[in-house]
This record gives sequence, C-alpha cells and structure tokens, in this order.
Amino acid sequence: MSATLGELAIRFGCELHGDPQQSVSHVATLAAAGAGSLSFLANPQYRRQLSATRATAVVLDAASAALCPVAALVCGNPYATYARMAAVLHPPAVPAPGVHPAALVDATAVVDASAQIDALAVIGAGARIGARCQVGTGCVVGRDAQLGADCRLHPRVVLADGVQIGARVIVHAGAVIGADGFGFAREGAGWTKVPQLGSVLIGCDVEVGANTTIDRGAIEDTVIEDGVKIDNQVQIAHNVHIGAHTVIAACAGIAGSTRIGQRCMIGGMVGVAGHLDICDDVALTGLTLASHSIREPGLYSGGIPAEPARRWRRLVARFKRLDQHAPRTGKAEKDVDDD
Amino acid sequence: MSATLGELAIRFGCELHGDPQQSVSHVATLAAAGAGSLSFLANPQYRRQLSATRATAVVLDAASAALCPVAALVCGNPYATYARMAAVLHPPAVPAPGVHPAALVDATAVVDASAQIDALAVIGAGARIGARCQVGTGCVVGRDAQLGADCRLHPRVVLADGVQIGARVIVHAGAVIGADGFGFAREGAGWTKVPQLGSVLIGCDVEVGANTTIDRGAIEDTVIEDGVKIDNQVQIAHNVHIGAHTVIAACAGIAGSTRIGQRCMIGGMVGVAGHLDICDDVALTGLTLASHSIREPGLYSGGIPAEPARRWRRLVARFKRLDQHAPRTGKAEKDVDDD
Amino acid sequence: MSATLGELAIRFGCELHGDPQQSVSHVATLAAAGAGSLSFLANPQYRRQLSATRATAVVLDAASAALCPVAALVCGNPYATYARMAAVLHPPAVPAPGVHPAALVDATAVVDASAQIDALAVIGAGARIGARCQVGTGCVVGRDAQLGADCRLHPRVVLADGVQIGARVIVHAGAVIGADGFGFAREGAGWTKVPQLGSVLIGCDVEVGANTTIDRGAIEDTVIEDGVKIDNQVQIAHNVHIGAHTVIAACAGIAGSTRIGQRCMIGGMVGVAGHLDICDDVALTGLTLASHSIREPGLYSGGIPAEPARRWRRLVARFKRLDQHAPRTGKAEKDVDDD
Repeated sequence: MSATLGELAIRFGCELHGDPQQSVSHVATLAAAGAGSLSFLANPQYRRQLSATRATAVVLDAASAALCPVAALVCGNPYATYARMAAVLHPPAVPAPGVHPAALVDATAVVDASAQIDALAVIGAGARIGARCQVGTGCVVGRDAQLGADCRLHPRVVLADGVQIGARVIVHAGAVIGADGFGFAREGAGWTKVPQLGSVLIGCDVEVGANTTIDRGAIEDTVIEDGVKIDNQVQIAHNVHIGAHTVIAACAGIAGSTRIGQRCMIGGMVGVAGHLDICDDVALTGLTLASHSIREPGLYSGGIPAEPARRWRRLVARFKRLDQHAPRTGKAEKDVDDD
Repeated sequence: MSATLGELAIRFGCELHGDPQQSVSHVATLAAAGAGSLSFLANPQYRRQLSATRATAVVLDAASAALCPVAALVCGNPYATYARMAAVLHPPAVPAPGVHPAALVDATAVVDASAQIDALAVIGAGARIGARCQVGTGCVVGRDAQLGADCRLHPRVVLADGVQIGARVIVHAGAVIGADGFGFAREGAGWTKVPQLGSVLIGCDVEVGANTTIDRGAIEDTVIEDGVKIDNQVQIAHNVHIGAHTVIAACAGIAGSTRIGQRCMIGGMVGVAGHLDICDDVALTGLTLASHSIREPGLYSGGIPAEPARRWRRLVARFKRLDQHAPRTGKAEKDVDDD
Repeated sequence: MSATLGELAIRFGCELHGDPQQSVSHVATLAAAGAGSLSFLANPQYRRQLSATRATAVVLDAASAALCPVAALVCGNPYATYARMAAVLHPPAVPAPGVHPAALVDATAVVDASAQIDALAVIGAGARIGARCQVGTGCVVGRDAQLGADCRLHPRVVLADGVQIGARVIVHAGAVIGADGFGFAREGAGWTKVPQLGSVLIGCDVEVGANTTIDRGAIEDTVIEDGVKIDNQVQIAHNVHIGAHTVIAACAGIAGSTRIGQRCMIGGMVGVAGHLDICDDVALTGLTLASHSIREPGLYSGGIPAEPARRWRRLVARFKRLDQHAPRTGKAEKDVDDD
C-alpha cells in the first residue's frame, strides 16, 4: 500500500515539512531507508542517524525537525504516529469470511458469517465467534468459549471451555488460555487435586504472546482487563487479576490470586508471588522478585547485574558472610518480614 | 450435580452441624456464596469472612466450627475434603468412548475400547492407550508411546516416541514430553549433536502443566515418579529424576541429570543446576537458584525481594563494593565453592 | 544397527586397543553397559566407573586408556567421537518421501519430492520445503516460509509467514518461530500496536528447543546465525542477532535488539536485557542478569546460591541495610550505572 505525505499528514494530524505529493510505500529504519521509505525518530539515541538518512520522509517531534534532511512529518508522539502509519502502509490481513473445509465447527457453535476459520481449527459446542474474527490453523476453541468481534487467534492457540474474550484481542501461536490452575490439597503423603471451576475473562484490546499460559480460576475467574499487553511465555496463575493497560514482558510469572493494578509495567522474567496486591502505576525492572505487596506507585528493582565470574564469587562469598560482620538482632529479620 | 449435607458428611467422614436434608449444588468462596453453595475455610486469613457468609454449608476444622453461622461440615483437613466434595458437585467430564472420525489412529496402535480419542488426535504405530483415557483434540502420541488407564491429555499435547505414562495422569495443553535433551559435544568451532536415545517414564497420578517440557534422556531415561505435580511452563531436562509426590511450581527449570527427592516443593521460577542431588523433603522458595546439592531436608531460599529502584541501585552499588571493605582471603572464595 | 570396532576405529580415526572383529550394537553408560554395548568416558568424574564396566568397548582419551578393562577406542575428543558413533548405531529416522493424505499443502507451495510431510501439517501459499525435510504432524508452515534441505520439524511447530530457515535445522515440538515482537507505543492511557514487519532468518545447522519462541523483527529481521543451539522454552525477542555457534540453555530470555556474539554460552534462565551488545566468547552462568553490554570475552555470573531460609532471611536483612553502614556517595550509584 502507498500513501502521499499530504494524506498521512492530514489523517494523523502532523505538520508536514516537505512536498505533500511525494509518496511512501513501506517503512524502514533511518539507516536502511531508501526511496519510498517512511522512517521515524523516537529514541534520541538514533538522532545521529537522522542526518544521513535516505528515507523519503521521517516521523519525528518538533525538537528534531530542524535536523531532518528529508521531508518531515512532525507530531507530538512520533512512535505512536509511526505505528499508525505503518499499519496503513502494511495493513494486517483482513479476514476472508468462511469456514475452511478442513475446520471442524460444532453444530451448536455460533460463528459470525464474517469470521474466518482456518484449516484444522476446532470450535466446540456452544462456542461463539464474533464478527470478523480470524481463528488460525489448528486452534482449539472449547465448549461455550466466546470471542468478541475482530479478534485474531494465530495458529495452534487453545481456548479452554468457557473462556470469554472481548473484542480486538490478538492471541499468538501456542498460547493456552484456561488450563487448570495449580491447586492441590496435601493429604497424607500425597496431593489431592482441587477442581479448577472458574474461568478466564479477558477484556478488549488485549494481546497475548506466543506460548503464554493463563490459567482458569479455582472458584472465581482469572481476569485480564482491557488493553493489557502480554508478551511471550508469560505465566498467569489462577485467580490473578490484571488491571487495564498493564504490560507484561516475556517470561514473567504471576502467582495465584495476585492482583496487579492498572498501567503497571512488569519487566521480563519478573516473578510476582501469590496473594499480593501491586497497586496501579508500578513498574518492575527485569528479573525482579516481588514477594511482598507494593502500595506506592513507582519503579522497583531487584536483580543484580552480572560481573566477571571470579569477582562475582568473591562478592557472593562476602555476601554470605554479611551475617558475621555485625551483631545479629531480631530486628534485622523483622525488617525483611515487614517489607 | 447436587448432594445433601448428610450424604457428604457420611461419604467424607465429617461431623455435620446442621440439617442433613439440606442440599448444595455448587461451590463458592465464603464471600460470594449464596443459597445452595458449599464453601470452605482452610486459610485462617479468610476467617473474618466466615461470619458473614451466605453459604448453605461450610467445610472447616473443629477450631473454626463454633464461628460458623451456617451448616458446618467439620473435619481434620478441610481443604482436601472440600476438594473431594467439589469433585462430586462438579464432576470432571467422563470419557465418551470412541475414536472421533477426524482422529488418525495407526493400525498397529492399541486403543482401549473405553477410551475417547478426540478430533485430529494422531496416535502412532505401536502406541497403547489405556482404559477410559481421554486424548484431546490435536494431541500427538508418538510411535510406541504408552498411556495407562484413566489418563487425560488436554488438547495439543505431544508425547514423543516411546514415552511411557502410568495411570491417572493429567497433561495440560501444549505440554511436550519426550523432546530431545540438549546435548552437544564441542568439536572445532561448532557443536556435534549427541543422539538422545533414552525416553521419559512417568508414574501414576502425575499432573503436568500447560506448555511444560520434559526431555527424553540421553542414554537412560528421564523419570518422574508417582504423584508428582508439575505446573505450567516448567522445564525438566534430560536424565532428571523427580521423586514421588514432589510439586514443582510454574516456570521452574531443572537442569540435566539432577535428582530431586520425594515430597520436595520447588517454588516458581526456581532454577536447579545440573548434576545435583536434592534430598527428600526440601522446599525451595520462588526464584531461588540451587547451584549446589542439598543434603538436609528443610526450607531454602535465594531471591532478594524488590526495593524502590533508587534504593536498589544504592544497595547494588554497595554490594558491588563488598570486596573492597574487607581483606580478600582465599578462604572467602572457598566458602562458596564448598557450599 | 551394529558395527565392528575395527570399522568404527577406521571411520572415526581412533586407535583401537582390542579385537577389531568384536561388534557393538547399542550405547550404554559405563555403569549399565553389558555385552554389545559401546560406552564412553569424557567427564573425569566417571573415571571410577571405568574399571568395573562390562561394556564391549569404551571411547576415551589416551590418558584414560590404560585404565580400561575392555576394548578401548582411543581418540582426542571422546565425547564428540561417541556422539558420531552413537548416530551410527542408532541412526535417526530417514524421511519417507511424500505428503500424508491428511496434510494440507497449498497449491502454490513447492515441496521437494524427497521431503516427508506428516499428517495434519499445513503448508501455506508460496512456502518452499527443501530436499529430504521432515515436517512433523500438525506443523504449520506459513505463507512464503522457506526450509532448506535436510531440516526436521518435530510435531506442532509453527513457522510464521516469511520465516527463512537454512539447511540441517532441527526444530522441536511446540516451538513458535516468527510471532510478532512485543512492540507498543504509549498513547494516552493505552498502547498502540507497532506493526511487526520484519521476519526471522535462521542459518544452517541450528537446533531450536521445544516450546521456544523466536519473534519476527519490527522492521528488520531477527537473525540466528549458523550452528546456534537453543534449548527448550527460550525466548528470543524481535531484532535480536545471535552469532554463530552460540549455545543458549533452557528458559533463557534475550530481550529486543540485543546482539550476542559468536561462540557464546548462555546458561539456563539467564536474562539478557534489550539493546545490549554481548561480544564473542562470553559465557554467562545460569540465572545471571545481563543488564549491561559486555565487551570482554570471559565467564560472567550473577545468581546467588540458595541458603537455608532462616539464614537467607538474615543475609537479606543485612543486605538491605548495606546502605546504612557506610556513607552514601554519589559515586557508589555511578559505579552501577557505568558497569
């Protein structure tokens, strides 16, 4: 798809420095751009690449506009504006309505006529698939599961029985939504399974990454509010509640019954323990362990950056002797408990 | 399904305080319960919700029975008893014997007549599927793999060739059991693959979480003993041996050839290094690194809880200077090696 | 398959101490070996098992040869030589050329006549499958994706549209290659999706573990060079570049736009932050956090080994008071920033 700079400027509210008749057909990085490329500058660390770019036009903010050697589309939020223009130049696949002959749709499922059901997808009894959904190859949509309008399930997604998903949700390949939570009662030497009877409720405009797992609740439901974005290989345990517009980076894990507020940013490989309350607007940097509730918005950290191994071993040895260098007080331990 | 309190009390050995003719039809939390609800109190932190509950009956222990405003089913282990009653009120799906016309079962596979094989499941040559098994949509059961009686494979499970599984095992969606272990021999600048010729042996009453991976052994087998419960996205490497009734929470990883004893509790995101021996009855809290063998039962920890980022940076800076505050001795390093 | 010791010695350049007419039919560990077994000694910790082995022959180095009570195949790199001999005795399945009747191959896909396409595999429009490839049960190969010669996709692998893979690549079950990177622009209270328009390029002789995810690039491509070996449940984010012959152990995560050099060894559960540069020949031990670029080859560490919980709590309490024991200087914090 191509567009003129004039069209883009008007549609996305940019100030155009340059010829409105010029057109762009694809996106590129500042460094790799050539004729017909639309590029952008959002991260100041790339500003030095701006002067040499061969892009046809660059999306950037007013502070950088004067440095731009080519046409400039000037706006307040260049990254978001670039994202929207990129979707114009490279539009996502639109659904081709219909059920592939090799898909299996239960007679009692309700699939909107505008939806696309790909080969080997299996739609269970009583399931409902909304308008313009795309259900990818090999997906399994369980009994009574619901998908709102304009959702896209990439290949091999599993939605277990009864899972409910809002509109405009994207789920990437291999994600499993609604498997049993991990609930067992100790009994004698072994463990008795606690039936996992809740479901998973996902709001609108959510994205779920590849091979991510979101478990169904034990009695009540696991809830993911609107606008939450979840990366690959994230684990969300039973009865977790994630507030609107929170983002969770890859490989993070949220243990059971924890509530995470709105607009939080959970870094990669972060572990959040169970039964905690993380308030709105908390950011956790990568590899942090959140083992206590957090009641104040802000940025929290927990991982210790790598060192050369020999030095690290010395540091660990010193760390392990910390309790020998000062008197032991009951208070010290309490400090940790009360965190 | 519904049951009278009298029936439940007799079947599960509870002392009933209340009307044996009253019946319950479903479970609910203390806070959300209404007429017909069975609830339970196991965690004392919810005791304050007991006085206001509108449940028809509550499963609890003798110490809390006097505080119960409704019918009480009194027993020694309320959580396990609740779990068993919940399975009566909400019975799991029983297999509908037969092979779905869109399943593919090799002519040499032996599928018990009472087993249910769902659509698009593929059962390989020589595989054996026991009585009353449910093999979910899109599962792949490899050549010569074996499933004991009453197993349930949720959708899209892969059992690789030759994997052997006992009775009453549940495997959740997306799990992969029997992929090659990660074995390579350095040779010149590159790596030569070491054939992974062992298998995976899983005992009875095991549960395996969604998208978990358990690798086949290099020469001998990877072994998971009876009653082991494994959460989602756990990685178990080749030649690991997990003792009976051990539980492993989500996102934990056990590296190659490590033996973990019986009744251990491995927390979420725990990493256990390779070639270790973890004795029986060890518990590791979440995000712990076990890089040495553990020979004494007990609770072990290793993660440092999050702090506000500014404070954390100060702490890390001080940590990184620990080796400057005291004389360096060879002994300090040895302390670590000998852990 | 069986082979005489003479054949093996000649083919793999070993010095044979023993009868060249003796034959071996299978591999075994030193401890479990019996008549007809080929075993090996590579790790000196198993040397004590050598004297009691009942193997027919043992692959080992010159330093151990004198201790061998049975026939010895003496060579410089016993582990790699064992690996190659094991592949002779236990040859991997060769492809059975042809497309299974229950596979779905788009009319515009080009599948080499020598390739094997298993049941329920779905090959998209314009995809190309090279000579002697094996595409396993339930795999999804996207539109215009390419597989070089002699690749093996285990069951249920997803290659998204446009992914390009070289020759002799093995991908284990459940891996997802080419899902969207995690890219969102903040806009108001929410997040706008940034189209992920790059692809994934994988070189030759790469192995990708079960349930691993490798995301497509945002604008340019994610690149995995020749000979890289990736274990299970690894997450590789968009625009990462992994140099040749690097190995990445299970559950590691590499965040977006990071470059990792050649011949690196990334341990299990290691987290590498985004936009970093890790030079050639870096090794990171398990559970290390790499949050800064590394410009010197060598071994780096970062995790602190577990302690009994009571002691650990004392240590953490002391750690958390480190900033109270010494004067706070701006310099301390800078030390961390400048790492």
